[in-house]
Amino acid sequence: MSRAWLRLLACLAPVALAAAQATGSPPSLALMPVPAAARIGGGRVPITAATTFALNGFVDDRLRAGVGRLIVRLQARTGLVLSRSLSTPAAGATVVITCKGPGFTTPALGEDESYTIDAGAQVTLGANTVAGALRGLETLRQLLSGDASGFFIPGISIQDRPRFPWRGLLIDVGRHFEPVEVIKRELDAMAAVKLNVLHWHLSEDQGFRVESRKFPKLQQLASDGQYYTQEELREVVEYARQRAIRVVPEFDMPGHVTSWVVAYPELASAPGPYELARKFGVFDAAFDPTRKETYKFIDTFVGEMAPIFPDAYWHIGGDENNGKQWLANPKIQAFMKEKGIKDAHALQTYFNQQLVGILHKHGKRMMGWDEILQPGLPKEAVIQSWRGQKSLVDAAKQGYDGVLSAGYYIDLLNSAASHYAVDPLPAGSDLTEAEAAHVLGGEAAMWGEWVDPETIDSRIWPRTAAIAERFWSPREVADVNDMYQRLDRASVELEELGLTHLRNADVLLRRLTGGADVAPLKPLADLVEPVKGYQRGGQQPWMTTLGPLTHLVDAVSADSPAGRATTALVNNLLGDAPRFALARPELEARFARWRDARDPIARLADAAPAIREVTPLAEDLAAMGEIGLDALTCLSRRITPDAAWRDAKLAVLDRTARPKAALEFPFVTSMRELVIGAAEQGQLATMSPADWRARVRSLAAPPRRGR
Amino acid sequence: MSRAWLRLLACLAPVALAAAQATGSPPSLALMPVPAAARIGGGRVPITAATTFALNGFVDDRLRAGVGRLIVRLQARTGLVLSRSLSTPAAGATVVITCKGPGFTTPALGEDESYTIDAGAQVTLGANTVAGALRGLETLRQLLSGDASGFFIPGISIQDRPRFPWRGLLIDVGRHFEPVEVIKRELDAMAAVKLNVLHWHLSEDQGFRVESRKFPKLQQLASDGQYYTQEELREVVEYARQRAIRVVPEFDMPGHVTSWVVAYPELASAPGPYELARKFGVFDAAFDPTRKETYKFIDTFVGEMAPIFPDAYWHIGGDENNGKQWLANPKIQAFMKEKGIKDAHALQTYFNQQLVGILHKHGKRMMGWDEILQPGLPKEAVIQSWRGQKSLVDAAKQGYDGVLSAGYYIDLLNSAASHYAVDPLPAGSDLTEAEAAHVLGGEAAMWGEWVDPETIDSRIWPRTAAIAERFWSPREVADVNDMYQRLDRASVELEELGLTHLRNADVLLRRLTGGADVAPLKPLADLVEPVKGYQRGGQQPWMTTLGPLTHLVDAVSADSPAGRATTALVNNLLGDAPRFALARPELEARFARWRDARDPIARLADAAPAIREVTPLAEDLAAMGEIGLDALTCLSRRITPDAAWRDAKLAVLDRTARPKAALEFPFVTSMRELVIGAAEQGQLATMSPADWRARVRSLAAPPRRGR
Repeated sequence: MSRAWLRLLACLAPVALAAAQATGSPPSLALMPVPAAARIGGGRVPITAATTFALNGFVDDRLRAGVGRLIVRLQARTGLVLSRSLSTPAAGATVVITCKGPGFTTPALGEDESYTIDAGAQVTLGANTVAGALRGLETLRQLLSGDASGFFIPGISIQDRPRFPWRGLLIDVGRHFEPVEVIKRELDAMAAVKLNVLHWHLSEDQGFRVESRKFPKLQQLASDGQYYTQEELREVVEYARQRAIRVVPEFDMPGHVTSWVVAYPELASAPGPYELARKFGVFDAAFDPTRKETYKFIDTFVGEMAPIFPDAYWHIGGDENNGKQWLANPKIQAFMKEKGIKDAHALQTYFNQQLVGILHKHGKRMMGWDEILQPGLPKEAVIQSWRGQKSLVDAAKQGYDGVLSAGYYIDLLNSAASHYAVDPLPAGSDLTEAEAAHVLGGEAAMWGEWVDPETIDSRIWPRTAAIAERFWSPREVADVNDMYQRLDRASVELEELGLTHLRNADVLLRRLTGGADVAPLKPLADLVEPVKGYQRGGQQPWMTTLGPLTHLVDAVSADSPAGRATTALVNNLLGDAPRFALARPELEARFARWRDARDPIARLADAAPAIREVTPLAEDLAAMGEIGLDALTCLSRRITPDAAWRDAKLAVLDRTARPKAALEFPFVTSMRELVIGAAEQGQLATMSPADWRARVRSLAAPPRRGR
Repeated sequence: MSRAWLRLLACLAPVALAAAQATGSPPSLALMPVPAAARIGGGRVPITAATTFALNGFVDDRLRAGVGRLIVRLQARTGLVLSRSLSTPAAGATVVITCKGPGFTTPALGEDESYTIDAGAQVTLGANTVAGALRGLETLRQLLSGDASGFFIPGISIQDRPRFPWRGLLIDVGRHFEPVEVIKRELDAMAAVKLNVLHWHLSEDQGFRVESRKFPKLQQLASDGQYYTQEELREVVEYARQRAIRVVPEFDMPGHVTSWVVAYPELASAPGPYELARKFGVFDAAFDPTRKETYKFIDTFVGEMAPIFPDAYWHIGGDENNGKQWLANPKIQAFMKEKGIKDAHALQTYFNQQLVGILHKHGKRMMGWDEILQPGLPKEAVIQSWRGQKSLVDAAKQGYDGVLSAGYYIDLLNSAASHYAVDPLPAGSDLTEAEAAHVLGGEAAMWGEWVDPETIDSRIWPRTAAIAERFWSPREVADVNDMYQRLDRASVELEELGLTHLRNADVLLRRLTGGADVAPLKPLADLVEPVKGYQRGGQQPWMTTLGPLTHLVDAVSADSPAGRATTALVNNLLGDAPRFALARPELEARFARWRDARDPIARLADAAPAIREVTPLAEDLAAMGEIGLDALTCLSRRITPDAAWRDAKLAVLDRTARPKAALEFPFVTSMRELVIGAAEQGQLATMSPADWRARVRSLAAPPRRGR
């Protein structure tokens, strides 16, 4: 990376600019993803009621609609009534969009998505393709700035293009159905952060979600009435096309097929009847790979669906087939012996080879999860890795294209920072340039066990915007604090587009309190996070696909800003004297609020039984508030408490570290650091502040939990 | 009204019960609308994970789906996973629904919507029809209560039926389009408050909103692409049918037809071409009532639409035809002379008579606005009054059925209390019993000039719930304070069903501040209301149908709870000494917050140009805060300020009473009372507190504004 580029990054960081802004010069930019290259110039282009737009060069319905959306969004943000006419002569227009040609009219892998923006006397956006122009229009939207003199686009020069060509979001509508309007708003959000593949996971053990006219029992018997009509599927594909987003359907097989065999038990490898899965996990049902009728069925089905999904890729899933039905079925065993197929893996490879032929016949290339990477897999297949980066590297070395999803499982509810740190192609990879080119990009994966239309947005956004930046921006764009600042802004902007991840939190809280004022619950709700990974299933084993996703855990953010702020404050406090002085009053106020939150929540719970499950968390928060206040007193008065004090506090913190109601506090380790810091003050005399800080950090590291 | 009934009302008032609740006895009920008769018994039926439901007697898809929705909502509220099985034997079930028969399978005027609920050892719901059972299920939903011992249905006995058979909500999708998902959520909300007619205003000067296959230019040229496909229309009608809600389509004619004549100019009474109206008001375009082709067109169109809208009624609009095109067209003038038609009114009657025949042919009865009530109108027509109660009384005396909308124009943004005070059939009416039976009910009217999908919910709800109660509950249910308390609860419950009137406010505020913290804006946003009536058009004359509805005026409630609370506090303060003592600290805190809100808003506006228009309101609020603090000091220290003080303060209040940014403060008169109260303290010695209060009130009445 050039030093000019580093300077630029500094320029783009809103931190740096916040100070500049106060003196009236360059504005805070919050572009997300960060462009490949940009240079802030002088000047600005005012956005006023007289602002006009012109299309120069190639124009089609997608581009016209894209500019229309930009105008509507600028209107919404500014409150101005802007001209909708796009036929203004380019010379006089405020914003001129010049597009050289259509590019792929049906979005396809390998599209040129590059664009340039120059804002000086006027704003010019240039692109080779409509897809590129659409990406640039989203950047223009993010460039809108305002200050005391009004709205404007700052003077800037941007040359942008994506790092990876495959930037996806998987949405699982099998476990919980998501209606068309949900998918459409996710597509709007994807476009906003320059993702270009909707990986639509359409069938699962818990439900079959598309209308088949050839096999209507699929939706009639195996969807609970919750499926997309073919017209709706086409509507979504067209909505995506308008935004230069590909739609890759996934029909998972030979495992994860309970819904198929509820409708057509003859497809299964064991006799039915079957019932839709209502709980989660890996189920036994698997297609019978030995019967011709199975392939005939799949062939007919793919033939019916292929024209609806014009993308060249077709995802066959292929994951988590436990092979139990195959091993238990004598006919299948006999078939394997006859064909010399040695185990279930090999049988799945055999199955996949038949699928490749079927997909070819219908003009599709195969995509599947890691498991499909077996000898004999045709080279055109794309491997999607959920197991880890190694599968991707293995695939690339064997000449297969690959897409990384390990590290991007957003249903695990890890922080944006943790996903941001995962790179599909990390620096120092031992892949050759040609092998590296097989790494097409990545996909965030929104598995559907614990989301419904009311909560799914808050599980996808804003964290997926950070992942989208990882896929689009140069590898070197990796400053986590800067990312979070831009993410907060992007999050608000996503709601402007119709997303509901922020607004629905209060709806959930008000429902929990039965309409009472939710203010008492806020200090707690702002600070807890859902348990990570697959813990929730263990904590709420009674839950089914038909049960309510309306607990506090469903209302809170997966990546609490208030939790992050607490951690940052403790870090500052333990850093050095000046930072201590700055952080102390803010922390003191926080800890007092935590302490004082307990009783109002207990009172609320008396009238609102749905929040009784969280009163132990209110106890924990209050206890941490009291510990924090104690530790602050010790630290500011330079009193070193004894080991009994320390151990008593750490014991309480062990309790508060245990999840309750499927919720946890993300900053318990920081509280441990405060306690240890107070107890270790004596050591400050004998070591440097940095060494002391390291010692406190290491002593405070949480005890390993056995899981 | 019987005294038992009055006792019951007292029982139902949450005020009375709030106190009772603290001691552990009967729970707060917030039924809206209030049932015709109810008696609170002892005991309760616990709602737990073991709760079961049974259907006894007649069952169909509507009833099954209705119970399914109830279970989902109870799950959401309680967090419990409940059994979805409805086949439990009635004897052992927690909730037993017994329905005698289907009633109208397509909802129709005159349906028996009565039901009974008895909650003792178990909960039993009885109804003669599915419609009645569905109404009762909504009451059951509202009955869910909770306290420290858990969730339960309180012991209660309800016999309920509606006062009026026609309880409607008009939604105008002509001026701004509202997609299907918006209409569906409005239907959910209507069902929740027992409204039973969606009056769907589908064509306007600004847009034609349905797909016609016979006349496709209607949607192609006159909708901006925003219209319902026929499949969507059917989907909405079915969605309504599932909730026992009728759908009455309105295709306004012969005026308000600009969109029709954009597509088919030959229908007009003056030569085209026409353009869609982008602004609001009354336009000249009118169908040519003298040409046979006009009727042939209408006949074909009605024939195409009639099967889509199965209701017996068809609304022809008929309002606000200014007759200009008719008077200016020599051929029409000649026609009138030839037929002996003396003026435009008579010509419209002629037009309507032709329409009656066309509607008959397609099995429809005519409904129209007041203007259609002209000699010769067939008796089966229904008159909808927007002009006032007198039209309705006139119609009833002439033997016409009528529906009241005057007083229920929710687009005028008046308070819920003001609508609640309007009765379709007020006590003391001089109608005979037979005449009174012609008053079928009423309709709230959501005209579409100033709403879009993001804001429409906040313009309809929660105020329309108060109107719904007026249409359903006995006339004597009229306590405004009690209504507001139940309305606040109903409002939160409506959001649980998917409405967005509360949650979207913050989205709008965050957009206005460009993502900055909206907290500084809140004290102001909570206290201002949109200007009432038709003032906004005057204040924002630049606005068009394509412009943004994203100003602060779009974010704030039409009936500010904080404003109401301020008025109530001032009332208490000026009431008597004990109430003064209670109200003073709360008012003092409020006034200080108002004063302190100014600077943060000014700072916010420096970075967020979209809120610069509201900084004068922040100035006004701060000025009122300062005046309030001054007056409080005078009142509590018994200092009587001089006339110069009073006049100076009143002059400031005259300024704050003037709307800005299409916003106003609803409590300026209360502030005037405070100032007058302080200045008139001397009089307290010479008169009773009640007389003094009346004197202050009268002196403080605002100067009449000339409009």
